[in-house]
Amino acid sequence: MRRIMAFNQVSADGYFSGPDGNLDWVVQDPEIGKSMAANLSGPGTILFGRRTYEMFESFWPKALDDPKTAPNPHGGGRSAETRAMAVWINEATKVVFSRTRKDVTWRNSRLVRELDPREIEEMKRQPGADMIIFGSGSVASRLSEHGLIDDYQFVVCPVLLGNGRSLLSGLPKSGKLTLEEARPFPSGNVMLRYARAR
Amino acid sequence: MRRIMAFNQVSADGYFSGPDGNLDWVVQDPEIGKSMAANLSGPGTILFGRRTYEMFESFWPKALDDPKTAPNPHGGGRSAETRAMAVWINEATKVVFSRTRKDVTWRNSRLVRELDPREIEEMKRQPGADMIIFGSGSVASRLSEHGLIDDYQFVVCPVLLGNGRSLLSGLPKSGKLTLEEARPFPSGNVMLRYARAR
Repeated sequence: MRRIMAFNQVSADGYFSGPDGNLDWVVQDPEIGKSMAANLSGPGTILFGRRTYEMFESFWPKALDDPKTAPNPHGGGRSAETRAMAVWINEATKVVFSRTRKDVTWRNSRLVRELDPREIEEMKRQPGADMIIFGSGSVASRLSEHGLIDDYQFVVCPVLLGNGRSLLSGLPKSGKLTLEEARPFPSGNVMLRYARAR
Repeated sequence: MRRIMAFNQVSADGYFSGPDGNLDWVVQDPEIGKSMAANLSGPGTILFGRRTYEMFESFWPKALDDPKTAPNPHGGGRSAETRAMAVWINEATKVVFSRTRKDVTWRNSRLVRELDPREIEEMKRQPGADMIIFGSGSVASRLSEHGLIDDYQFVVCPVLLGNGRSLLSGLPKSGKLTLEEARPFPSGNVMLRYARAR
Protein backbone atom coordinates (compact mmCIF):
# COMPACT_ATOMS: atom_id res chain seq x y z
CA MET A 1 0.00 0.00 0.00
CA ARG A 2 1.46 3.39 -1.02
CA ARG A 3 1.61 5.97 1.72
CA ILE A 4 0.80 9.67 1.57
CA MET A 5 3.14 12.02 3.39
CA ALA A 6 2.40 15.69 4.15
CA PHE A 7 5.51 17.87 4.29
CA ASN A 8 5.35 21.43 5.58
CA GLN A 9 7.48 24.19 6.94
CA VAL A 10 5.71 25.89 9.83
CA SER A 11 6.39 28.83 12.10
CA ALA A 12 6.88 28.31 15.84
CA ASP A 13 3.45 29.87 16.38
CA GLY A 14 1.82 27.30 14.13
CA TYR A 15 1.33 29.01 10.76
CA PHE A 16 2.04 27.29 7.44
CA SER A 17 2.14 30.44 5.36
CA GLY A 18 1.80 34.17 5.82
CA PRO A 19 -1.65 35.80 5.42
CA ASP A 20 -1.16 36.11 1.65
CA GLY A 21 0.37 32.65 1.27
CA ASN A 22 3.96 33.91 1.39
CA LEU A 23 6.81 31.66 2.47
CA ASP A 24 9.58 34.28 2.63
CA TRP A 25 9.93 33.70 6.39
CA VAL A 26 11.02 30.06 5.98
CA VAL A 27 14.46 29.41 7.46
CA GLN A 28 16.40 27.65 4.72
CA ASP A 29 18.21 24.56 5.75
CA PRO A 30 20.79 22.87 3.54
CA GLU A 31 20.85 19.85 5.86
CA ILE A 32 17.11 19.25 5.50
CA GLY A 33 17.42 19.80 1.74
CA LYS A 34 20.18 17.20 1.60
CA SER A 35 18.20 14.73 3.65
CA MET A 36 15.15 15.19 1.41
CA ALA A 37 17.18 14.97 -1.80
CA ALA A 38 18.77 11.75 -0.55
CA ASN A 39 15.32 10.26 0.01
CA LEU A 40 14.01 11.05 -3.46
CA SER A 41 13.84 7.79 -5.28
CA GLY A 42 12.23 6.89 -8.56
CA PRO A 43 9.30 8.73 -10.08
CA GLY A 44 7.13 10.18 -7.34
CA THR A 45 3.59 11.46 -7.14
CA ILE A 46 2.73 14.88 -5.73
CA LEU A 47 -0.78 15.90 -4.71
CA PHE A 48 -1.60 19.58 -5.06
CA GLY A 49 -4.24 22.13 -4.33
CA ARG A 50 -4.47 24.81 -6.99
CA ARG A 51 -2.62 27.56 -5.17
CA THR A 52 0.38 25.47 -4.19
CA TYR A 53 0.49 23.98 -7.69
CA GLU A 54 0.62 27.45 -9.20
CA MET A 55 3.39 28.49 -6.84
CA PHE A 56 5.42 25.41 -7.77
CA GLU A 57 4.57 25.85 -11.46
CA SER A 58 5.96 29.39 -11.40
CA PHE A 59 9.33 28.19 -10.14
CA TRP A 60 10.30 24.58 -10.70
CA PRO A 61 9.83 24.11 -14.48
CA LYS A 62 12.51 26.75 -15.12
CA ALA A 63 14.64 26.05 -12.08
CA LEU A 64 17.07 24.04 -14.17
CA ASP A 65 17.05 26.29 -17.25
CA ASP A 66 17.78 29.60 -15.66
CA PRO A 67 19.03 28.98 -12.17
CA LYS A 68 20.58 32.40 -11.72
CA THR A 69 17.55 34.54 -12.38
CA ALA A 70 14.68 32.28 -11.39
CA PRO A 71 12.89 33.44 -8.26
CA ASN A 72 13.25 30.81 -5.59
CA PRO A 73 10.39 30.61 -3.07
CA HIS A 74 12.17 27.73 -1.40
CA GLY A 75 15.65 29.25 -1.33
CA GLY A 76 18.63 27.01 -1.38
CA GLY A 77 19.99 28.73 -4.50
CA ARG A 78 21.39 26.51 -7.19
CA SER A 79 22.72 23.85 -4.88
CA ALA A 80 23.01 20.22 -5.92
CA GLU A 81 19.97 19.55 -3.71
CA THR A 82 17.85 22.16 -5.49
CA ARG A 83 18.83 20.68 -8.84
CA ALA A 84 18.00 17.15 -7.67
CA MET A 85 14.69 18.43 -6.33
CA ALA A 86 13.91 20.20 -9.61
CA VAL A 87 14.54 17.05 -11.64
CA TRP A 88 12.44 14.99 -9.27
CA ILE A 89 9.51 17.46 -9.17
CA ASN A 90 9.47 17.95 -12.93
CA GLU A 91 9.45 14.18 -13.48
CA ALA A 92 6.89 13.45 -10.76
CA THR A 93 3.25 12.78 -11.52
CA LYS A 94 1.43 15.89 -10.35
CA VAL A 95 -2.22 15.45 -9.41
CA VAL A 96 -3.93 18.85 -9.15
CA PHE A 97 -7.30 19.16 -7.43
CA SER A 98 -9.10 22.22 -8.75
CA ARG A 99 -12.61 23.17 -9.79
CA THR A 100 -11.46 26.39 -11.48
CA ARG A 101 -8.38 25.55 -13.57
CA LYS A 102 -9.21 24.89 -17.23
CA ASP A 103 -6.21 22.67 -17.75
CA VAL A 104 -2.71 21.94 -16.49
CA THR A 105 0.19 22.05 -18.91
CA TRP A 106 3.22 21.39 -16.71
CA ARG A 107 4.78 18.06 -17.62
CA ASN A 108 3.18 14.96 -16.03
CA SER A 109 0.32 16.97 -14.51
CA ARG A 110 -3.22 15.71 -14.27
CA LEU A 111 -6.26 17.78 -13.37
CA VAL A 112 -8.88 16.28 -11.04
CA ARG A 113 -12.13 18.21 -10.49
CA GLU A 114 -13.33 16.59 -7.28
CA LEU A 115 -11.42 15.01 -4.45
CA ASP A 116 -13.10 11.63 -4.05
CA PRO A 117 -11.67 9.75 -1.05
CA ARG A 118 -12.41 6.41 -2.75
CA GLU A 119 -10.28 7.40 -5.73
CA ILE A 120 -7.41 8.32 -3.41
CA GLU A 121 -7.75 4.94 -1.71
CA GLU A 122 -7.64 3.32 -5.14
CA MET A 123 -4.48 5.28 -5.99
CA LYS A 124 -2.89 4.06 -2.75
CA ARG A 125 -3.59 0.46 -3.74
CA GLN A 126 -1.86 0.89 -7.11
CA PRO A 127 1.82 -0.03 -7.32
CA GLY A 128 4.33 2.81 -7.16
CA ALA A 129 6.32 5.05 -4.86
CA ASP A 130 4.83 6.90 -1.93
CA MET A 131 2.95 10.14 -2.54
CA ILE A 132 3.68 13.53 -1.06
CA ILE A 133 1.63 16.66 -0.47
CA PHE A 134 3.22 20.07 0.13
CA GLY A 135 1.09 22.84 1.64
CA SER A 136 -2.26 22.64 -0.22
CA GLY A 137 -4.29 23.34 2.91
CA SER A 138 -7.75 22.52 1.61
CA VAL A 139 -6.66 19.24 -0.01
CA ALA A 140 -4.57 18.29 3.04
CA SER A 141 -7.60 18.98 5.25
CA ARG A 142 -9.90 16.75 3.17
CA LEU A 143 -7.32 13.94 3.07
CA SER A 144 -6.70 14.24 6.83
CA GLU A 145 -10.44 14.17 7.49
CA HIS A 146 -10.65 10.80 5.71
CA GLY A 147 -7.54 9.41 7.40
CA LEU A 148 -5.70 9.23 4.07
CA ILE A 149 -2.46 10.93 5.15
CA ASP A 150 -0.16 8.38 6.76
CA ASP A 151 2.80 10.57 7.70
CA TYR A 152 3.23 14.21 8.64
CA GLN A 153 6.57 16.00 8.58
CA PHE A 154 6.66 19.49 10.03
CA VAL A 155 9.82 21.58 9.92
CA VAL A 156 9.27 24.08 12.73
CA CYS A 157 11.19 27.27 11.89
CA PRO A 158 12.45 29.54 14.72
CA VAL A 159 10.13 32.36 13.69
CA LEU A 160 6.96 33.92 15.08
CA LEU A 161 4.76 34.92 12.16
CA GLY A 162 2.00 36.41 14.29
CA ASN A 163 -0.46 36.07 11.44
CA GLY A 164 -1.14 33.64 8.65
CA ARG A 165 -2.83 30.45 7.58
CA SER A 166 -3.20 27.16 9.38
CA LEU A 167 -2.62 24.02 7.32
CA LEU A 168 -5.69 22.12 8.48
CA SER A 169 -9.12 23.62 9.04
CA GLY A 170 -12.71 22.54 9.19
CA LEU A 171 -11.99 19.01 10.40
CA PRO A 172 -14.98 17.59 12.27
CA LYS A 173 -12.79 15.80 14.80
CA SER A 174 -9.25 15.63 16.05
CA GLY A 175 -6.87 12.75 15.38
CA LYS A 176 -4.00 11.17 17.24
CA LEU A 177 -0.46 10.93 15.96
CA THR A 178 2.56 8.87 16.91
CA LEU A 179 5.78 10.85 17.27
CA GLU A 180 8.52 9.17 15.24
CA GLU A 181 11.32 11.72 15.46
CA ALA A 182 12.10 15.18 16.85
CA ARG A 183 15.34 16.40 15.34
CA PRO A 184 16.84 19.85 15.84
CA PHE A 185 19.14 21.37 13.19
CA PRO A 186 21.90 23.97 13.64
CA SER A 187 19.67 26.48 11.79
CA GLY A 188 17.22 26.34 14.70
CA ASN A 189 14.74 24.37 12.64
CA VAL A 190 13.22 21.29 14.28
CA MET A 191 11.94 18.41 12.17
CA LEU A 192 8.93 16.70 13.76
CA ARG A 193 7.97 13.41 12.13
CA TYR A 194 4.65 11.76 12.94
CA ALA A 195 2.66 8.77 11.77
CA ARG A 196 -1.12 8.69 11.97
CA ALA A 197 -1.99 6.64 15.05
CA ARG A 198 -3.95 3.48 14.35
CA MET B 1 15.55 42.53 34.60
CA ARG B 2 12.63 40.12 35.09
CA ARG B 3 11.76 38.01 32.08
CA ILE B 4 8.36 37.10 30.70
CA MET B 5 7.85 33.52 29.53
CA ALA B 6 4.93 32.31 27.43
CA PHE B 7 4.00 28.67 28.09
CA ASN B 8 1.56 26.83 25.85
CA GLN B 9 0.45 23.40 24.86
CA VAL B 10 -0.13 23.26 21.12
CA SER B 11 -1.38 20.70 18.63
CA ALA B 12 0.95 19.36 15.92
CA ASP B 13 -1.06 21.41 13.40
CA GLY B 14 -0.38 24.61 15.31
CA TYR B 15 -3.50 25.30 17.36
CA PHE B 16 -3.42 26.46 20.97
CA SER B 17 -7.02 25.64 21.78
CA GLY B 18 -10.04 24.14 20.10
CA PRO B 19 -12.54 26.45 18.36
CA ASP B 20 -14.41 27.04 21.62
CA GLY B 21 -11.26 27.41 23.70
CA ASN B 22 -11.28 23.80 24.87
CA LEU B 23 -8.10 22.05 25.98
CA ASP B 24 -9.47 18.52 26.32
CA TRP B 25 -7.14 17.33 23.54
CA VAL B 26 -3.96 18.12 25.50
CA VAL B 27 -1.80 15.05 26.05
CA GLN B 28 -1.06 15.03 29.77
CA ASP B 29 2.53 14.57 30.70
CA PRO B 30 3.62 13.81 34.26
CA GLU B 31 7.26 14.41 33.27
CA ILE B 32 6.59 17.93 32.04
CA GLY B 33 4.44 18.58 35.12
CA LYS B 34 7.32 17.45 37.34
CA SER B 35 9.82 19.58 35.48
CA MET B 36 7.54 22.63 35.78
CA ALA B 37 6.79 21.99 39.44
CA ALA B 38 10.54 21.71 40.14
CA ASN B 39 11.11 25.11 38.53
CA LEU B 40 8.45 26.91 40.57
CA SER B 41 10.32 29.06 43.01
CA GLY B 42 9.12 31.84 45.27
CA PRO B 43 6.06 33.96 44.62
CA GLY B 44 5.52 34.29 40.88
CA THR B 45 3.56 36.63 38.68
CA ILE B 46 1.11 35.41 36.05
CA LEU B 47 -0.24 37.61 33.27
CA PHE B 48 -3.74 36.78 32.07
CA GLY B 49 -6.27 37.65 29.44
CA ARG B 50 -9.83 37.49 30.74
CA ARG B 51 -10.79 34.16 29.23
CA THR B 52 -7.75 32.25 30.43
CA TYR B 53 -8.09 33.88 33.86
CA GLU B 54 -11.68 32.71 34.12
CA MET B 55 -10.70 29.18 33.13
CA PHE B 56 -8.00 29.12 35.78
CA GLU B 57 -10.30 30.77 38.33
CA SER B 58 -12.88 28.03 37.84
CA PHE B 59 -10.37 25.34 38.72
CA TRP B 60 -7.33 26.29 40.74
CA PRO B 61 -8.80 28.04 43.81
CA LYS B 62 -10.62 24.82 44.78
CA ALA B 63 -8.03 22.39 43.43
CA LEU B 64 -6.66 21.89 46.95
CA ASP B 65 -10.01 21.87 48.79
CA ASP B 66 -11.87 19.32 46.79
CA PRO B 67 -9.39 17.47 44.64
CA LYS B 68 -11.65 14.55 43.92
CA THR B 69 -14.57 16.37 42.40
CA ALA B 70 -13.01 19.51 40.95
CA PRO B 71 -13.00 19.53 37.17
CA ASN B 72 -9.43 19.54 35.94
CA PRO B 73 -8.85 21.21 32.57
CA HIS B 74 -5.16 20.46 32.92
CA GLY B 75 -5.49 16.84 34.00
CA GLY B 76 -2.85 15.31 36.16
CA GLY B 77 -5.38 14.44 38.87
CA ARG B 78 -4.32 15.01 42.43
CA SER B 79 -0.64 14.35 41.89
CA ALA B 80 2.05 16.03 43.97
CA GLU B 81 2.80 18.21 40.95
CA THR B 82 -0.81 19.38 40.64
CA ARG B 83 -0.83 20.23 44.33
CA ALA B 84 2.47 22.14 44.05
CA MET B 85 1.09 23.95 41.01
CA ALA B 86 -2.14 24.81 42.85
CA VAL B 87 -0.24 26.30 45.79
CA TRP B 88 2.02 28.29 43.48
CA ILE B 89 -0.82 29.62 41.29
CA ASN B 90 -2.99 30.57 44.24
CA GLU B 91 -0.07 32.44 45.85
CA ALA B 92 1.12 34.08 42.62
CA THR B 93 0.33 37.67 41.77
CA LYS B 94 -2.26 37.48 39.00
CA VAL B 95 -2.43 40.46 36.65
CA VAL B 96 -5.65 40.33 34.61
CA PHE B 97 -6.04 42.48 31.51
CA SER B 98 -9.73 43.08 30.86
CA ARG B 99 -11.97 45.93 29.83
CA THR B 100 -15.16 44.07 30.77
CA ARG B 101 -14.56 42.47 34.20
CA LYS B 102 -15.92 44.59 37.05
CA ASP B 103 -13.48 43.20 39.56
CA VAL B 104 -11.31 40.19 40.34
CA THR B 105 -11.73 38.45 43.67
CA TRP B 106 -9.34 35.49 43.45
CA ARG B 107 -6.52 35.93 45.93
CA ASN B 108 -3.60 38.16 44.81
CA SER B 109 -5.39 39.19 41.61
CA ARG B 110 -5.17 42.67 40.17
CA LEU B 111 -7.34 44.05 37.36
CA VAL B 112 -5.71 46.21 34.68
CA ARG B 113 -7.97 47.93 32.13
CA GLU B 114 -5.45 48.68 29.40
CA LEU B 115 -2.28 46.90 28.41
CA ASP B 116 0.30 49.68 28.33
CA PRO B 117 3.66 48.38 27.08
CA ARG B 118 5.50 51.00 29.18
CA GLU B 119 3.85 49.68 32.33
CA ILE B 120 4.93 46.15 31.45
CA GLU B 121 8.49 47.40 30.93
CA GLU B 122 8.29 49.08 34.33
CA MET B 123 7.10 45.79 35.88
CA LYS B 124 10.06 44.02 34.31
CA ARG B 125 12.45 46.48 35.92
CA GLN B 126 11.00 45.86 39.39
CA PRO B 127 12.67 43.23 41.56
CA GLY B 128 11.04 39.81 41.70
CA ALA B 129 10.78 36.45 40.03
CA ASP B 130 10.18 36.01 36.31
CA MET B 131 6.64 36.33 34.95
CA ILE B 132 4.66 33.77 33.01
CA ILE B 133 1.74 33.94 30.62
CA PHE B 134 -0.42 30.91 29.82
CA GLY B 135 -2.63 31.02 26.72
CA SER B 136 -4.25 34.49 26.77
CA GLY B 137 -3.92 34.96 23.02
CA SER B 138 -4.80 38.64 22.76
CA VAL B 139 -2.49 39.64 25.62
CA ALA B 140 0.31 37.38 24.33
CA SER B 141 -0.09 38.96 20.87
CA ARG B 142 0.20 42.51 22.22
CA LEU B 143 3.23 41.60 24.37
CA SER B 144 4.89 39.80 21.43
CA GLU B 145 4.23 42.78 19.19
CA HIS B 146 6.19 44.99 21.60
CA GLY B 147 9.01 42.48 22.06
CA LEU B 148 8.12 42.01 25.74
CA ILE B 149 8.07 38.20 25.81
CA ASP B 150 11.60 36.89 26.32
CA ASP B 151 10.99 33.15 26.24
CA TYR B 152 8.47 30.89 24.53
CA GLN B 153 7.87 27.30 25.57
CA PHE B 154 5.62 25.23 23.34
CA VAL B 155 4.68 21.68 24.26
CA VAL B 156 3.73 20.18 20.90
CA CYS B 157 1.17 17.41 21.51
CA PRO B 158 0.91 14.47 19.05
CA VAL B 159 -2.58 15.50 17.97
CA LEU B 160 -4.12 17.05 14.86
CA LEU B 161 -6.92 19.36 15.97
CA GLY B 162 -7.93 20.39 12.46
CA ASN B 163 -9.67 23.47 13.80
CA GLY B 164 -9.09 25.98 16.54
CA ARG B 165 -7.35 29.14 17.64
CA SER B 166 -3.85 30.35 16.96
CA LEU B 167 -2.00 31.88 19.91
CA LEU B 168 -0.70 34.96 18.11
CA SER B 169 -2.65 37.01 15.60
CA GLY B 170 -2.65 40.49 14.15
CA LEU B 171 1.08 41.05 14.56
CA PRO B 172 2.34 43.64 12.05
CA LYS B 173 5.60 41.81 11.50
CA SER B 174 7.31 38.50 12.16
CA GLY B 175 10.07 37.97 14.69
CA LYS B 176 13.05 35.68 14.96
CA LEU B 177 13.63 33.21 17.74
CA THR B 178 16.64 31.28 18.98
CA LEU B 179 16.01 27.59 19.56
CA GLU B 180 17.24 26.63 23.03
CA GLU B 181 15.96 23.09 23.36
CA ALA B 182 13.91 20.47 21.51
CA ARG B 183 13.07 17.67 23.89
CA PRO B 184 10.80 14.72 23.11
CA PHE B 185 8.94 12.92 25.93
CA PRO B 186 7.71 9.31 26.02
CA SER B 187 4.13 10.63 25.75
CA GLY B 188 4.92 11.87 22.24
CA ASN B 189 4.94 15.48 23.41
CA VAL B 190 7.89 17.60 22.30
CA MET B 191 8.98 20.61 24.33
CA LEU B 192 10.33 23.41 22.15
CA ARG B 193 12.09 26.17 24.08
CA TYR B 194 12.93 29.46 22.37
CA ALA B 195 14.37 32.82 23.34
CA ARG B 196 13.48 35.97 21.44
CA ALA B 197 16.41 36.68 19.10
CA ARG B 198 18.22 39.96 19.78
